[in-house]
Amino acid sequence: MIKQYIKEINAELIQLLGKKIDLLRGVQAPASNAGVSPLQEIKSNDDNESDIPSILNQAGVPQFVWQNLVINCQAAVKSRLPTNLQAKPRRVTIIGGGGMMGSFFAQKLSAAGHQVTILGHDDWDKAEELLNDRDLVLICVPIEYTTEVIQKTVKYLSPNTALADLTSIKTPALKTMLEYHSGAVIGLHPMFGKVQSFLSQKVVVCSGRRDEEFQWLLKLIEADGGELIHSTAEEHDRMMVAVQAIRQFTTFSLGVFLAEQELDARRSLDFASPPYRLQLGMISRLLTQSAPMVIDIMLATTESRQAIGKLAATYARLAKLVKESRREELIAEFGAIQAYLVPQMDCCLTESHHVINALSNFLNGKRQETENVGANRGSPLQKEEGRRQKAEASVF
Amino acid sequence: MIKQYIKEINAELIQLLGKKIDLLRGVQAPASNAGVSPLQEIKSNDDNESDIPSILNQAGVPQFVWQNLVINCQAAVKSRLPTNLQAKPRRVTIIGGGGMMGSFFAQKLSAAGHQVTILGHDDWDKAEELLNDRDLVLICVPIEYTTEVIQKTVKYLSPNTALADLTSIKTPALKTMLEYHSGAVIGLHPMFGKVQSFLSQKVVVCSGRRDEEFQWLLKLIEADGGELIHSTAEEHDRMMVAVQAIRQFTTFSLGVFLAEQELDARRSLDFASPPYRLQLGMISRLLTQSAPMVIDIMLATTESRQAIGKLAATYARLAKLVKESRREELIAEFGAIQAYLVPQMDCCLTESHHVINALSNFLNGKRQETENVGANRGSPLQKEEGRRQKAEASVF
Repeated sequence: MIKQYIKEINAELIQLLGKKIDLLRGVQAPASNAGVSPLQEIKSNDDNESDIPSILNQAGVPQFVWQNLVINCQAAVKSRLPTNLQAKPRRVTIIGGGGMMGSFFAQKLSAAGHQVTILGHDDWDKAEELLNDRDLVLICVPIEYTTEVIQKTVKYLSPNTALADLTSIKTPALKTMLEYHSGAVIGLHPMFGKVQSFLSQKVVVCSGRRDEEFQWLLKLIEADGGELIHSTAEEHDRMMVAVQAIRQFTTFSLGVFLAEQELDARRSLDFASPPYRLQLGMISRLLTQSAPMVIDIMLATTESRQAIGKLAATYARLAKLVKESRREELIAEFGAIQAYLVPQMDCCLTESHHVINALSNFLNGKRQETENVGANRGSPLQKEEGRRQKAEASVF
Repeated sequence: MIKQYIKEINAELIQLLGKKIDLLRGVQAPASNAGVSPLQEIKSNDDNESDIPSILNQAGVPQFVWQNLVINCQAAVKSRLPTNLQAKPRRVTIIGGGGMMGSFFAQKLSAAGHQVTILGHDDWDKAEELLNDRDLVLICVPIEYTTEVIQKTVKYLSPNTALADLTSIKTPALKTMLEYHSGAVIGLHPMFGKVQSFLSQKVVVCSGRRDEEFQWLLKLIEADGGELIHSTAEEHDRMMVAVQAIRQFTTFSLGVFLAEQELDARRSLDFASPPYRLQLGMISRLLTQSAPMVIDIMLATTESRQAIGKLAATYARLAKLVKESRREELIAEFGAIQAYLVPQMDCCLTESHHVINALSNFLNGKRQETENVGANRGSPLQKEEGRRQKAEASVF
């Protein structure tokens, strides 16, 4: 009975969700004759519809369930995009196409109908053949080989071949490409690791020479859901210090410290607020990556190494204030960064609320599941007591 | 037309969600006669139902929309709990009941039918009257006054009055209460700030003497959705070093560093991966708190001040390796923490995936909204170009 009922409700729900997403998708059609675009109609009647709170209330549906559903349906629209651009097929060679990023680009370009050739590190004897008469040559070798490979490559290129690289530090690569190649040049930095598509991923684009010859490539990235960030190579490299090197160093160093202190991470989670869980979550994500890749990002440039040195100096300075319990000075520091950062970070605060709520709901959902399963195995108080007895004394 | 259609779909969706949540809620009833509990039926037919993927596929609903809906419906069950425990009304005095935590407890205890009196710092001339013949006296004054207030309070208490405190450092408070009061004693630490209910919040419980006299209070917290964490005072205080002091220090110090470097936080978000956005999000959350409260948590104990000193030393040591580009040693450090932390942090990794996906969906949903609104204002490429021209050169 219940079995069948749940099945029916689920099927009905999914049908309705499909209709709702289709409607949102239809929004991108031209405005209707009535002078009101479908978008406006939906805007005023979906997220903001004044009846919604009372309907939710009557049905006993908490507001967060509905709000998340609205957000996810919006996101669903983005997740199904037309991939057929009917672009003219291009001849592309990817140097280092065997790596993660190289093979991702190879797959995406092939799927879009382009003719893709790979030049691996054992293929330089065939370079003449593999690099001759190409529309695009894409360099995706590890960062320490980029300059050398660019210099080696350009000897085989005609001025009609467009040259791009995917290295994570842009200034030296772009400079070398512009210096040695007379044709079109662009620097790209895909801001992601292993993914299935460009969907909601960022690609930084550093203009070199004759950008128009790369428009077909940039449009392909956008059509697959990617977001292009235009920047100079210098700005990109400065930003990467904060976005990558400093972030990875702080996460890594906190992990080293917690391991040094022999933290019982599992037990600490019993005491954890969502922000602490997130901090450990970010450490565990970092630890799934390859060690050389993480370390090389920190070591990549003089600027990143210097910034890490300055960061450690700031930590040492503040730790000294803490050691000496200089409360008023610490409060003044806190006030100063409030004044500087808060006005710039309103969207981060909104995002963090959403994320913390998502985590709380996830944990609540899991807890509800666990409690149901363990419903006949003693009261929560008794269970807690059992866990307490098992908990070890020496934890931090 | 569309207006009406969307309205109908939304109303139908909400009705179905209400039914689904009610069914999940019914799960907590006793097992059915057929020998299969409703829970098991739902388990096997909701999350894991084998038809679901194909139904989703046919309806064009991405899997993440459904998975999040299932999680949120589970969480919704937890969010509506019976609050009427029909407990015997108790006489409770809260010392420092005017603060955030004190007034929260006062409100919750009153709502549950108990008789609550507040003793503020100007009320000590009425202490005899306010503390005499109570079932429970709850101390929630700022941490620096706790010991003093306990000593002052106990003079007025009979051995039949149960005594508890809410301070965030438990060892000294519990020791003082046990030493000066001969009745029932317990130490509590609510692990949260401003909230509306105990729902999905943690309260650490440190056993003192005759815990059974506090069961009515602990059950009230649990009935409102709170989670009790049993611990010794010593373990609690050790854990708080990692969960609170170190976390707040790292977040605070990173904020100080980014402000020192005059980071253009807003522009840096254009380049940001979700983990970087989260890092800034955690800084902005910290900055919404009161400066003295954050600083006092770092300064609270000798242990926390020492741990912060050790943390800064670890940062300095690793920054030196970075400065000198000692790649192999850094890779070895990375390997060592992988070995130590990864086996303990599987749930953190799962949670971080969920959180990163939630953030990506949130950003995609917002982006979809923005693109709809700006649909007739030039192509994304043109918009990016415009932003690029506005972007300032000196950012980090």
